[in-house]
Amino acid sequence: MLHSVRNLKTLSRQGHLFRTALAYQPVRTLATAVGKARVGAHTNEKSFFPDEPESPSVKTAIPGPASKEIMSRLDQYQDTRSVFYIADFHKSKGNYIVDADGNVLLDVFAQIASIPIGYNSPAFLSLASSPVFQSALANRPALGVNPTKDWVDTVESAFMSVAPKGMPNVFTAMCGSCANENAFKTAFIYKAAKSRGEKDFSLEELQSCMKNQAPGSPDMSILSFTQAFHGRLFGSLTATASKAIHKVDIPAFDWPKATFPLRKYPLEDNVEYNQKVEKESLAEVEKLVKSWKSPVAAVVVEPVQSEGGDNHASPEYFRGLQKICQEHDVLFIVDEVQTGVGATGTFWAHEAWNLPSPPDLVTFSKKFQAAGFYSHEKFRPAQPYRLYNTWMGDPVRALQSAAIVREVQDKNLLENVNRVGDYLQKELKDISRKHGKLENVRGQGTFIAFDLPTPQERDALIGEMRKNGVNIGGCGDRAIRLRPMLTFQMKHADIFLDTLEKVVAA
Amino acid sequence: MLHSVRNLKTLSRQGHLFRTALAYQPVRTLATAVGKARVGAHTNEKSFFPDEPESPSVKTAIPGPASKEIMSRLDQYQDTRSVFYIADFHKSKGNYIVDADGNVLLDVFAQIASIPIGYNSPAFLSLASSPVFQSALANRPALGVNPTKDWVDTVESAFMSVAPKGMPNVFTAMCGSCANENAFKTAFIYKAAKSRGEKDFSLEELQSCMKNQAPGSPDMSILSFTQAFHGRLFGSLTATASKAIHKVDIPAFDWPKATFPLRKYPLEDNVEYNQKVEKESLAEVEKLVKSWKSPVAAVVVEPVQSEGGDNHASPEYFRGLQKICQEHDVLFIVDEVQTGVGATGTFWAHEAWNLPSPPDLVTFSKKFQAAGFYSHEKFRPAQPYRLYNTWMGDPVRALQSAAIVREVQDKNLLENVNRVGDYLQKELKDISRKHGKLENVRGQGTFIAFDLPTPQERDALIGEMRKNGVNIGGCGDRAIRLRPMLTFQMKHADIFLDTLEKVVAA
Repeated sequence: MLHSVRNLKTLSRQGHLFRTALAYQPVRTLATAVGKARVGAHTNEKSFFPDEPESPSVKTAIPGPASKEIMSRLDQYQDTRSVFYIADFHKSKGNYIVDADGNVLLDVFAQIASIPIGYNSPAFLSLASSPVFQSALANRPALGVNPTKDWVDTVESAFMSVAPKGMPNVFTAMCGSCANENAFKTAFIYKAAKSRGEKDFSLEELQSCMKNQAPGSPDMSILSFTQAFHGRLFGSLTATASKAIHKVDIPAFDWPKATFPLRKYPLEDNVEYNQKVEKESLAEVEKLVKSWKSPVAAVVVEPVQSEGGDNHASPEYFRGLQKICQEHDVLFIVDEVQTGVGATGTFWAHEAWNLPSPPDLVTFSKKFQAAGFYSHEKFRPAQPYRLYNTWMGDPVRALQSAAIVREVQDKNLLENVNRVGDYLQKELKDISRKHGKLENVRGQGTFIAFDLPTPQERDALIGEMRKNGVNIGGCGDRAIRLRPMLTFQMKHADIFLDTLEKVVAA
Repeated sequence: MLHSVRNLKTLSRQGHLFRTALAYQPVRTLATAVGKARVGAHTNEKSFFPDEPESPSVKTAIPGPASKEIMSRLDQYQDTRSVFYIADFHKSKGNYIVDADGNVLLDVFAQIASIPIGYNSPAFLSLASSPVFQSALANRPALGVNPTKDWVDTVESAFMSVAPKGMPNVFTAMCGSCANENAFKTAFIYKAAKSRGEKDFSLEELQSCMKNQAPGSPDMSILSFTQAFHGRLFGSLTATASKAIHKVDIPAFDWPKATFPLRKYPLEDNVEYNQKVEKESLAEVEKLVKSWKSPVAAVVVEPVQSEGGDNHASPEYFRGLQKICQEHDVLFIVDEVQTGVGATGTFWAHEAWNLPSPPDLVTFSKKFQAAGFYSHEKFRPAQPYRLYNTWMGDPVRALQSAAIVREVQDKNLLENVNRVGDYLQKELKDISRKHGKLENVRGQGTFIAFDLPTPQERDALIGEMRKNGVNIGGCGDRAIRLRPMLTFQMKHADIFLDTLEKVVAA
């Protein structure tokens, strides 16, 4: 199959939204723009989506007139200031998102890293006709009271088949924030039970907690890191520190933050410095665990700090963290909400750490469609109804998790992620060397980021890439993060890379 | 149609689960058991579900052997101590839930008040074949970034068509706890902006919040009530006070609780006492709002305290609450997670209060399948991304909300709720008078409760009712709560009432 970018359109002028929609100019092919064209280099690759578009196609400014019209209608009811454009998912396919104006974008952001196996995946569409799915849709159970006959099969096929080694329990929830907050609750309950020697609650504890007072509502804490993101509800937001605008004006618990090591790139030129900052971070964690004003029940960490700028650390660092937790009887919670489900090249990112024993709790959501956390039976509270709510997860979404697991296995998607990820990282480093503006290329699998010199240049690059038919996202102050689906192939990487090189050169 | 309870089975002996499954005894009809039979009194009623079972049918102990086997398999992965039995939703229909052992129960608890229009409602099943639904299933949007073309239609048909008067905005979320916590965040952001005179954040605020310290992470509070239930995450659990076991060991904010008025029944004999406790409660609220150690940003209240024991208050009381909020510039949040969507006889329970102006925020979840809160545009934060997360709700569930709204209108379900509710309340009062053990019958629509003398007798009644084919739930210390679906008809009420009278008489 010959891959062409002849349909790739761009817009020369911002602001003329309605006019340019009718009078756009066809753009030069990427090959003439940058001298080298990768597109067409991977013609022997079998496509996961035979009916996917061959290339992006941008006909209007984004958002175009149709998007704007819908946004203005929606804005009557909901805040649309964060909306980039309106999607037309009826026309989207595989790695391509189509917007309300018919613009076709190669999607390397994928609904904030939450689309696993492509738009309109047959694996999801076929679910709708299955009796088990229809029953789950039409009869939403209170899973803590009346799980269905089907639920245990779903738990096995969706969650247990890919459970991190040594983690045979799963708590199901509705979203990443809920998953993390229930993990935090688990840690508090476990730690408190240990502190009182597994004895019964005292009357004073039971009475004081009803007034939100100690000892029943104890002063305990979760240690997290600078730049961390764990969610936006009251407990998870306390553990979050990626952006002030997310936190300001919201009451928070007095929980500690340790400095996350910010490594320098290229890694091979900064070995000593990077070892030093990781060592310092571990020492700070240990000091905080020993000396914080309230007992620390758990340390929570992302395998890659995602919202906070795609900050990676070494496997040694994470093994060191776990060791500190074990030595001080503090739970080690790994937040895999964004890193989980394959994009780093292993199903769970923490698999790459080679831990001597499993983490205590591993949380998930986003690309898995269902949310929750893995754990061990020893972390079940001694009493029922303490980690509990009406729905306790969503079987409709869990059936999608099961479909994702099957697709990952059937299509060998981890192998695809590793192959495409290696290629992307290598080529990005080339572009970085050649053009200078791209700094600090870093990644695991296709979970890749690089920095621009300033936040303004980063934002401008996102805008230019979108005009050229490629949807990417930012994170941290000046990083671009790539969050393709697991179905992102070499041919897609070529389109992304050629477009990036063209835009950077311009 | 002749309604018979001849198939109604019970079990005389607990504990012989596997044996009794094979050797149960047919029970006497209700008529012979209690002298009066309501069943058969409403034969002219047109059934919402022509293919629904005619009556309960209990063949085994509950949980029976099939349930127990599945529970033990599930218990490898998830805590099943709160599970009553395993549901077979493929066989359940309308108001009847069928369990894994083939027991058919009339369901008057409905997955903790969260099933709106019956099991396997054609209105839900037909969704699965609609292109809009299939697209929503196969392409889960980050609604804050890329809402779909379909989303605005869904928002209108699901949420805006039943929006409380004067509340033209809706924030969509994933569950009741998230809905409440985002409502609390809205209140804090609004109150903080007012306090600083709508000025920009100071550098100190932006820096201190990253460390969870004041002034950026301010000491502000939400006032809630004794016995309240608003959820189980860190902010919502702080506002909750229904049971100590839900709260103990979990860190909480130092937020105030006012005493909720606990009225005496029958209302007509306790007018003065009830006015007195409501007046005292309002005075306490006002005192706390004026004097609590941190500024109160909002008062949150349930129209009926549901988990806390089905505690009702008068419309005057709620109007008084709103007045205090308005006088002290505190937001008035109505938590309709359990009361919303018709069961009290109006679509939103607070409609019965006849408020002079709308509440500030109204939260919903459960029976609506989708969660979120209604509000006014003035409560949108001045900056974007402050009330935000990856999914911002779930279009799959919102499409169900739209189907529910259509069913409520097409089938005139509010009228049904009011007719059946009146009948249930009248008959329950009769049973209460006749048999003595049932106390304090109270309700709005079919949202009905009564007390037993002790928690033990309450729990025993739930067990006996289940053995006799009727599924009901408890709340508070000694209350039974009825939470039928909106499709619960007179014939179902008759089965429930006859069974109750038989069990109470025995």
